Amino acid sequence: MDVIEFRPERDQYAFTFGGVAPVRKVQPGTMLQLWTDDAFCGALRDPSDMPSAKLTMPFVNPQTGPFYVEGAEPGDMLALHFVDLSPARDFGASSTIPFFGGLTGTDRTVTLQDPLEERTWIYEVDRDRRTVAFQARSSDLRLELPMDPMLGTVGVAPAAGEVRSSLVPDAFGGNMDTPEMRAGASCYLGVNVPGALFSVGDGHYRQGEGESCGTAVEGAMNVSLIVDLVKGGGPAWPRIETDDYLMVVGSSRPLEDAWRISQAGMTGWLSDLYGLDKLDAYQLLTQVSECPLANVVDVNYSSVTKVRKSLLPPADAYDGVHRRLRELGGTTS
Amino acid sequence: MDVIEFRPERDQYAFTFGGVAPVRKVQPGTMLQLWTDDAFCGALRDPSDMPSAKLTMPFVNPQTGPFYVEGAEPGDMLALHFVDLSPARDFGASSTIPFFGGLTGTDRTVTLQDPLEERTWIYEVDRDRRTVAFQARSSDLRLELPMDPMLGTVGVAPAAGEVRSSLVPDAFGGNMDTPEMRAGASCYLGVNVPGALFSVGDGHYRQGEGESCGTAVEGAMNVSLIVDLVKGGGPAWPRIETDDYLMVVGSSRPLEDAWRISQAGMTGWLSDLYGLDKLDAYQLLTQVSECPLANVVDVNYSSVTKVRKSLLPPADAYDGVHRRLRELGGTTS
Amino acid sequence: MDVIEFRPERDQYAFTFGGVAPVRKVQPGTMLQLWTDDAFCGALRDPSDMPSAKLTMPFVNPQTGPFYVEGAEPGDMLALHFVDLSPARDFGASSTIPFFGGLTGTDRTVTLQDPLEERTWIYEVDRDRRTVAFQARSSDLRLELPMDPMLGTVGVAPAAGEVRSSLVPDAFGGNMDTPEMRAGASCYLGVNVPGALFSVGDGHYRQGEGESCGTAVEGAMNVSLIVDLVKGGGPAWPRIETDDYLMVVGSSRPLEDAWRISQAGMTGWLSDLYGLDKLDAYQLLTQVSECPLANVVDVNYSSVTKVRKSLLPPADAYDGVHRRLRELGGTTS
Amino acid sequence: MDVIEFRPERDQYAFTFGGVAPVRKVQPGTMLQLWTDDAFCGALRDPSDMPSAKLTMPFVNPQTGPFYVEGAEPGDMLALHFVDLSPARDFGASSTIPFFGGLTGTDRTVTLQDPLEERTWIYEVDRDRRTVAFQARSSDLRLELPMDPMLGTVGVAPAAGEVRSSLVPDAFGGNMDTPEMRAGASCYLGVNVPGALFSVGDGHYRQGEGESCGTAVEGAMNVSLIVDLVKGGGPAWPRIETDDYLMVVGSSRPLEDAWRISQAGMTGWLSDLYGLDKLDAYQLLTQVSECPLANVVDVNYSSVTKVRKSLLPPADAYDGVHRRLRELGGTTS
Repeated sequence: MDVIEFRPERDQYAFTFGGVAPVRKVQPGTMLQLWTDDAFCGALRDPSDMPSAKLTMPFVNPQTGPFYVEGAEPGDMLALHFVDLSPARDFGASSTIPFFGGLTGTDRTVTLQDPLEERTWIYEVDRDRRTVAFQARSSDLRLELPMDPMLGTVGVAPAAGEVRSSLVPDAFGGNMDTPEMRAGASCYLGVNVPGALFSVGDGHYRQGEGESCGTAVEGAMNVSLIVDLVKGGGPAWPRIETDDYLMVVGSSRPLEDAWRISQAGMTGWLSDLYGLDKLDAYQLLTQVSECPLANVVDVNYSSVTKVRKSLLPPADAYDGVHRRLRELGGTTS
Repeated sequence: MDVIEFRPERDQYAFTFGGVAPVRKVQPGTMLQLWTDDAFCGALRDPSDMPSAKLTMPFVNPQTGPFYVEGAEPGDMLALHFVDLSPARDFGASSTIPFFGGLTGTDRTVTLQDPLEERTWIYEVDRDRRTVAFQARSSDLRLELPMDPMLGTVGVAPAAGEVRSSLVPDAFGGNMDTPEMRAGASCYLGVNVPGALFSVGDGHYRQGEGESCGTAVEGAMNVSLIVDLVKGGGPAWPRIETDDYLMVVGSSRPLEDAWRISQAGMTGWLSDLYGLDKLDAYQLLTQVSECPLANVVDVNYSSVTKVRKSLLPPADAYDGVHRRLRELGGTTS
Repeated sequence: MDVIEFRPERDQYAFTFGGVAPVRKVQPGTMLQLWTDDAFCGALRDPSDMPSAKLTMPFVNPQTGPFYVEGAEPGDMLALHFVDLSPARDFGASSTIPFFGGLTGTDRTVTLQDPLEERTWIYEVDRDRRTVAFQARSSDLRLELPMDPMLGTVGVAPAAGEVRSSLVPDAFGGNMDTPEMRAGASCYLGVNVPGALFSVGDGHYRQGEGESCGTAVEGAMNVSLIVDLVKGGGPAWPRIETDDYLMVVGSSRPLEDAWRISQAGMTGWLSDLYGLDKLDAYQLLTQVSECPLANVVDVNYSSVTKVRKSLLPPADAYDGVHRRLRELGGTTS
Repeated sequence: MDVIEFRPERDQYAFTFGGVAPVRKVQPGTMLQLWTDDAFCGALRDPSDMPSAKLTMPFVNPQTGPFYVEGAEPGDMLALHFVDLSPARDFGASSTIPFFGGLTGTDRTVTLQDPLEERTWIYEVDRDRRTVAFQARSSDLRLELPMDPMLGTVGVAPAAGEVRSSLVPDAFGGNMDTPEMRAGASCYLGVNVPGALFSVGDGHYRQGEGESCGTAVEGAMNVSLIVDLVKGGGPAWPRIETDDYLMVVGSSRPLEDAWRISQAGMTGWLSDLYGLDKLDAYQLLTQVSECPLANVVDVNYSSVTKVRKSLLPPADAYDGVHRRLRELGGTTS
């Protein structure tokens, strides 16, 4: 398997999906070994680092990429299988950012109240114990939490000639912020432009569902992934497959619309896999779906619909691309 | 422990929280062995039974109760610990009801489109294998799904003199439709009126998160629960505790508001348990919360915020009422 | 025409729709001359009166009524024609109430921010000039605004045995807070219980659309209205007719659902009046509807769809009940 | 005054804000005489023309522009004063488009129901009577409605390097679809990129508030406008000024967030104009705001907050730019 390593220089950081020239061309079947900076561009390193002083809007959530996938045409499906995600720094950072987050007025849910206090937390990473350490600022409470590395942002260039901020997820993927984007997962994205032009970023060493305060345990990440391409059949919204689950991610507002997108996507997927009509698929989904939230903080919220494969008859989605990539990745790593 | 058995006659079914005279008075510490009919009042028994023909609105989602808890005063906390939930029929029923459900226009999200087809599914219960069988109507697909009994509806009389439909959850609990309301869980509800006047109903033999089509595998249920009372400290919104999790349920629209309620509730709970200020609690919650949806179909949607106890230092919420009831229940059953 | 005068004693104030015994029985065709206290029960009379000190929750938004309308049966339509609304005090009051209002976090849109400052404004009423005077608290700015008396709250007992707070509008009417509820308007409400059991309250000497801070220029009101009854044909949601407009009010969350309800209601009304199919009515509505917001602050928001009669062919809605009551009222006043 | 005429060739139609090279450079103070095609690119000309057959997505809602305004820098304010809007065709077209509109499931509010029937209406324009004629398809009803020409879409290149579809309004303006964008109005937009790069399009010969079915009486338009520039002080969201009103437009989801944006924007504007603190401005706004909806059909909804100038003390917003342009336009036309 071809392997390409890439670590962007600061001036190569991409802050949009679309609108950026590709940094590399890659063949389907290639493994990429990437480094991606954290959402703060590494600017928060100490509890005294305040976002309002250290961040330069809109230059946050930098992406590594985009990569041009040879042969990818609009309508195809890009498959990205994450072989490994490993923290690239010894600390993660999280922060309350004025008027950003789920439990504060924002630039959309505008209120006249004063912002919440700005505060930064630094999480010490222990690679051996695979933990990140929460240290309360108002008390002595210190907790070691299991490390659970994920990528907040995975996406392709949007349709209709759009160029979109790396902060706002939509049908092209982007900043979905779901903890399901772990090593072992394959992410399926519909291709909108020749070459797909995908990028990844926003490493989280750990994140709860919903990403309440707006920032996870943000950290630079080493990412190993295998790129593949399925001709035709690109899904309207991002899908994720693991050994155990099928998933669809919807991103919109209000949150019920993000959920509806993910549910209708899964209804269609079940129909396709098992030859059910839409009502039977809807009924089956009603009894088997798991619905963890992803983010409730971005301009579009993201909701995940998951179905556990063990509840369903065996089926090879997309001719078994996940299983194939999983095996490839297993051999490699 | 005192044990009270109660099975309502048809004319004793309660269809509201509040506005109904209590069927029994109970002392804190009593075990109740109840039977509760399904949300259809048992009217759907065959795939040919259509809701539009068989259901008489608004007489759906009948509750067993209300029970008057001796000593319960406004501001107190009612604890209901579910010892056992067992299907009381050999089948469960689910149905698409015109203009009701998550992926259809409704009486609130009004569209001018024709309704989805009305269709009923009957799930055969296998008690030994602890399964319910989905049988597709459009194909031969048959799936045995694990039985996972839960109560869709648990609540007390509302505040402010209101009487509320058993279909719409709110701060008083009610039709939250979360699969977390299983045997082994303790549900905590703030008391609004003398005696609390709680009732339970809406047995589901299994339900996916979100309850997409609007109806789970609905079935009459035998319910064993222990009633307890904590003086003072009643929470503003329902809480659930299990051996493994602390949970808060919020119910509102849009869905993000239901989520916000549950998140803010959990922020407060973490602050109380661990002496954190609100920002530290918000930060910790951001990294540890699990957010499964409950229902996205009722006039208020319900969202659950869960925190796994093993991530937190040991703490006895409400002086360990869950542990105590759990032990009592374990001894009993 | 029979005339009944009624001014409630303090212990006769009603704080719910439903759940209250009628204060009077009235025949259709009767004129009622009522007095109704303001939403604060008259407790805010000076800029130093703070809601947190002076209001006793949930005893706000008191209603005058309910009235039992002889002959009213479920399914009928109650018509209330407002002949005159006149301020009953020399001042109106408005206030920011902590965690209540459109530009603040609330008990539903929960945030962790501190509340906005609590502040009370007293508006001097000039009956001759028909103005209310805004006096800024942070500067010398003083503005005389035209008086425009309206009722925030008009409703009947809810369906399905519910008893609902006078603060939250829904299909039964209630706290819709639309400035369209002026003298000269007829309000049509579907009857849910024998006698309809309507009440009115929440006088506003003036209110902007949306009622942003949550409270209008609140003031006790003298209300003259004529009660009438149309057998059958009660609308699902409140309608208002004036000499110039047909209107439908929807109340729900999110705000688009309140709007959808009002729009679908008007589509149906246009279909009924002009024999249009639903698509033609939808198309016509698209080009002629006016959509002023009512409230965006209550637990259900309210949205109004208006159609100017002069754009449409002549038609007598409900056999001309508005015109008839208008003439009766004109003769009387 | 310099006058520039411009009519785009078909291959010059712009379908995004941002991402398109300017068609002309213009000096502040220039009058532009433009022609802009309708949202269907003129493809619907007969009731038999169905959108699904005639439209090529995403090539709808073509813009005329963008224009590079000499001297415009990020942070400045662009003022576009509309001197005249005149229908450029003898007919307007409207249509129901499958899964698009306010009273149907959409690609965001996804339902499983069948789409509404696709139907096209052609409105005959009578320039002398200044009417457009609605002809029902299901009956003989024919109505002449007053012509009320407006532009659905006015915007500048977005911030943060984004390129955005001409279908979705946001802080940069775009497809707000408010009937307030009439001749006589001045639209104020914050400049995000050098030259501002504004464009206009989406002529409506008439539109109701909300644009329920998703399409107004769409028609090609001759547009006369004067461009001006105010250095610094660009507003975060679009503002509109007429002789009679100050307005702010917010665009987001859910609809209450669009409203909140427009309300908070107006609170700030009132504070600036009259030296009020935010609470006094909030209070004043509460009693004087008018809140007509703009669109409830696009991926972002738009809501307008208007304040009638006659209720306020005299004030010259932005040093009287509206008055000045109004006079210039009056002299010219």
